[in-house]
Amino acid sequence: MQINLPDVLAEVRALCTQYETALVENDVAVLDALFWDAATTIRYGVSENLYGYDAIKAFRAGRPSAGLDRTVIRHEIVTYGRDTATSCLEFARDGATTTGRQTQTWVRTDAGWRVVAAHVSQMR
Amino acid sequence: MQINLPDVLAEVRALCTQYETALVENDVAVLDALFWDAATTIRYGVSENLYGYDAIKAFRAGRPSAGLDRTVIRHEIVTYGRDTATSCLEFARDGATTTGRQTQTWVRTDAGWRVVAAHVSQMR
Repeated sequence: MQINLPDVLAEVRALCTQYETALVENDVAVLDALFWDAATTIRYGVSENLYGYDAIKAFRAGRPSAGLDRTVIRHEIVTYGRDTATSCLEFARDGATTTGRQTQTWVRTDAGWRVVAAHVSQMR
Repeated sequence: MQINLPDVLAEVRALCTQYETALVENDVAVLDALFWDAATTIRYGVSENLYGYDAIKAFRAGRPSAGLDRTVIRHEIVTYGRDTATSCLEFARDGATTTGRQTQTWVRTDAGWRVVAAHVSQMR
C-alpha cells in the first residue's frame, strides 16, 4: 500500500479545501454533494449523531448559517493507496473555549471521492 | 466498489470486538498492536490530540486503567471494497452525562488490518 501518492493527495486536498469553504459559507449543496449518498454514511457532530445520508442532509438543511466560521489550526490528510483517505483537522471557533476536531474518511466511490464517515467534536 | 462484503465485514467485526475487550481491560499491548505503526496515524481522544503512533503509544502507556469500562449503545461497521472500513460507535460510561462516540478508520496494511485514524468524544 502506497501512502500519500502525490496525485492522490492533491485530489483529496482540493476536495477538503472545497469542503472547508462550503462549510464556513454554509453552502449546503456542496456539503451535501461531498458526502456519500448512502444509508451507511455516518456523521457525528458536536451535538448530534446522524445515521444515513438523508439524516445528514436534513440536519444541514435545518442548521442556522450563523457561527460556522472557523480557523483551521492544523490539517493532516493521509491517503492509503489510490481510493482511501483520512482528513484530520483541529479548528478554533469564536466563542469556543476548547479546540475543535474534525475527522473524515474519504473513499473513491463510483461517483468520485466522497466522505463516508465524519466526526466533529470539541475537546474537553 | 462493494459495500459490506460478508467475509470482509466479519474480519473487521472480529477485530473491533478484540479492540473493545482490550480497551475496557486496558490491554495496552493489544490496543497498540491494532493501531498502525506509522507517523501518519492520528488519534483524537476526549481530551487529547495525538499525532503519530509513538504519541498514541506513549499516551496509552501513561493512562490509568481505572474508569475505562463502557457500554456500547450502537455500533456500525461499514466496509468499502476489501481493504477499507469504518467503525462508528456510541457508548455510555459511568459518570458521563452525555453519550460518547468513537470513530475509527481501518485499512488493510501490508501487516494486516490496522486503525489509521480514530476520534473519541463526548457529545455536547
